[in-house]
Amino acid sequence: MTQALTSIKDDFSGWYNEIVYRADLAAPSPVRGCVIIKPYGYELWDTLRIALDKRFKATGHQNAYFPLFIPESYLKREAEHVEGFSPELAIVTIGGGKTLEEPLVVRPTSETIIGEAFAEWIQSYRDLPLLINQWANVVRWEIRTRPFLRTTEFLWQEGHTAHATHDEAEAETLQMLDVYNDVVVNMCAIPVIKGQKSDSERFAGALRTYTIEGMMGDKRALQCGTSHNLGQNFATAFNMQFLDENNQRQSCWTTSWGFSWRVVGAVIMTHGDEKGLRLPPLLAPIQAVIVPIFKTDDERTSVMAAANTVKAALVAADVRVHIDARDYQPGYKYNDWEMRGVPVRLEIGPRDVQNGTVVAARRDVPGKEGKAFFRQEGIAEQVRDLLTAIQANMLAQATTFRDANIVDVTSYDQLKEVVEAGGFARGWWNENRELEAQIKTETGATHRCYPLEQPSGGGVDFMTGQPAERVALFARAY
Amino acid sequence: MTQALTSIKDDFSGWYNEIVYRADLAAPSPVRGCVIIKPYGYELWDTLRIALDKRFKATGHQNAYFPLFIPESYLKREAEHVEGFSPELAIVTIGGGKTLEEPLVVRPTSETIIGEAFAEWIQSYRDLPLLINQWANVVRWEIRTRPFLRTTEFLWQEGHTAHATHDEAEAETLQMLDVYNDVVVNMCAIPVIKGQKSDSERFAGALRTYTIEGMMGDKRALQCGTSHNLGQNFATAFNMQFLDENNQRQSCWTTSWGFSWRVVGAVIMTHGDEKGLRLPPLLAPIQAVIVPIFKTDDERTSVMAAANTVKAALVAADVRVHIDARDYQPGYKYNDWEMRGVPVRLEIGPRDVQNGTVVAARRDVPGKEGKAFFRQEGIAEQVRDLLTAIQANMLAQATTFRDANIVDVTSYDQLKEVVEAGGFARGWWNENRELEAQIKTETGATHRCYPLEQPSGGGVDFMTGQPAERVALFARAY
Repeated sequence: MTQALTSIKDDFSGWYNEIVYRADLAAPSPVRGCVIIKPYGYELWDTLRIALDKRFKATGHQNAYFPLFIPESYLKREAEHVEGFSPELAIVTIGGGKTLEEPLVVRPTSETIIGEAFAEWIQSYRDLPLLINQWANVVRWEIRTRPFLRTTEFLWQEGHTAHATHDEAEAETLQMLDVYNDVVVNMCAIPVIKGQKSDSERFAGALRTYTIEGMMGDKRALQCGTSHNLGQNFATAFNMQFLDENNQRQSCWTTSWGFSWRVVGAVIMTHGDEKGLRLPPLLAPIQAVIVPIFKTDDERTSVMAAANTVKAALVAADVRVHIDARDYQPGYKYNDWEMRGVPVRLEIGPRDVQNGTVVAARRDVPGKEGKAFFRQEGIAEQVRDLLTAIQANMLAQATTFRDANIVDVTSYDQLKEVVEAGGFARGWWNENRELEAQIKTETGATHRCYPLEQPSGGGVDFMTGQPAERVALFARAY
Repeated sequence: MTQALTSIKDDFSGWYNEIVYRADLAAPSPVRGCVIIKPYGYELWDTLRIALDKRFKATGHQNAYFPLFIPESYLKREAEHVEGFSPELAIVTIGGGKTLEEPLVVRPTSETIIGEAFAEWIQSYRDLPLLINQWANVVRWEIRTRPFLRTTEFLWQEGHTAHATHDEAEAETLQMLDVYNDVVVNMCAIPVIKGQKSDSERFAGALRTYTIEGMMGDKRALQCGTSHNLGQNFATAFNMQFLDENNQRQSCWTTSWGFSWRVVGAVIMTHGDEKGLRLPPLLAPIQAVIVPIFKTDDERTSVMAAANTVKAALVAADVRVHIDARDYQPGYKYNDWEMRGVPVRLEIGPRDVQNGTVVAARRDVPGKEGKAFFRQEGIAEQVRDLLTAIQANMLAQATTFRDANIVDVTSYDQLKEVVEAGGFARGWWNENRELEAQIKTETGATHRCYPLEQPSGGGVDFMTGQPAERVALFARAY
């Protein structure tokens, strides 16, 4: 624990891998491509899960559960879909000691099996919209893995809905993008950009894919959630039809949208620093840690009494608080809780007991500027106000950083420079698969999205010089 | 929907399978041995999950997540364990398009992979106790399947803990049995019996297995949760050691305990009747359904206004309430909500609007006796009191039924009679694998448990005539 953390500036990737283990978020597992999510990391995911679940229900969705195993033939029904997923599949060929007649795919996503079910459940327009969510594990065989960001198995939610019209499906797709945006911006303090994927980057089988893209501490992009308007592609493949009000048979319009624990990785990479993790208060399992400081037994008694009083006041105010009563030096504890990203540290020593004070140190503001004396009286209100300020400040810090690293480009050479230096290149762009592929090969940057918020008017495509109607973001990404 | 439900008396099993689908709890899936859990059924499980999770945290446990896939070699390390599970395994042999060098087992339970992790995490007595829970899906290849009760894949939680001494592990095992007992008795209104499994029925690799056994409506037994004291068996197999306070290397003592969605099946089978499901109020997704009754448009306006006022009052009092405004006759709606087991139906017609009344019908008391006029004024308190009374009455009804069907036996012939007639046979019993096997073969009944609450003194083994110290329960079981 006393060994220095790998420098975030010199080796972001090494820093990330180390912090995940040193902050006790995850542990290596003996299974290739999988990690163990430890309690401190799981609680971050669980907090996101509860926040999302509440919002899904508020927007009329219900949870259901579909089988983990999908008959291989199902995946093949939607042509683009099977092509998109087949290199990544884990396949069960033996069950109960016997070779299976039809192998079972461990779900990489559930569009196909849910499509089959929806086709059974939907008869008439009265059954629409059908708004279902599933919390589940999925498996995609990954070669290069990294905790939270890319593992063979991961936890996520996948929403699946069916509608009577294209416009309703489109509205649903955008509504759920907004739900993701709300949680990521307002809880995770990550200032994501809402946008639409290009044709080459959209979900296999979708009409349109929307995304929220965040900028990580190394200026790379990370997709934090996606929402797909599937058009009638899956409905056609799975024969998902309904009788409309005129008794005519129509094909449904469907959507799907997914959010995974990779957002925990995004939190680490957006906010972390040389000292370790930094957690936004709304997400932090421990929002305030109390470190008692004493030398003699007498001091111990009075300091611990004050610490317990402060703790009780904070618990009563719904602050998630912990007293670190371990037998270590205060300095060691400071480092340890900074590593774990706890937003507020409250130090209480013998002088504080006398003066009725507490030293409050913010994780988001280093050094003396981040320290203040709080009165023990009314401590809960002061800490709550501080947590609110930290939440806002972390979003502001990340927004400032992001905005400083988005560069407008008007030529391919400029894009290359921006990508090489690190950051998002933004330029006018006409949809073009071949040129996107060329950029990817030559620079490692991918088309991240066409931001939903566009400049007015039009411009000139930075690569072809042709008139263009939209700007796009390009960046190297996770 | 108008077709009569299969008679619960004539064909309990047919009734069960039908009610699961007609109450919209689950749907058949195209995957062998798996069902789809629909929103109404999923919410029952989710309510249990939330209730358990709260109790796990209150007793010091934390959630974590371990990989779905387990290297085949792991299962083989604990000899009894692999023998217990190997006929039931689903095995992944292909990943990312290639045949795997070592096949991966889809977890049937996670003792082995968690054992491996605990061995890494535990160094000294300071790391103990280690108290971990996991919410997960598991897979056991089943030949005969039935929704909720026995499916190839199911959702459950599995607790895994490590301790410094046998006694601490034993205390943990019994504490978690009590947690299960609390939820099943007090939320599900199922009067389970806490007991210890015989050697032949205990978990593969455990020192002792404790169970809570319920009696279903057909007088068969159903195990509603189990808690295992694993002794040092898994700790030895996985080299899970710690340095004690004297710096001596010791082997840990571990426990595991599991609770699955089969308890939803137990709720159905304990409380259901000829009209369908009956849900205890604490578990019911909808606790009260309001059925508005009207003929003219004017009546519709005034009745719906009253219905909305009643609904608002109930929502404010945290009652889960729903207005059935569908375009069906009231009688159809009554049947439909009886099928779905909603505890309270509130009927509001034009006369009720005039009189300021509501007709409240209890699902747990049939006919006129279950009906009463409530005042619209103060409706929330009256409904809450009624829900409390229903919860208590459903537990009382199930307890009366169970107690009437436990019969003391003093001979094998008597046991045969009891088992044949249906019910639990209770008799003095000396642990004996061979005789248990004989009873199972000849009568279909299994040793369910030695109840923790035992009569004082001792008695005579009903099969051997030898002196015996404990009574045991035998019954046919799910």
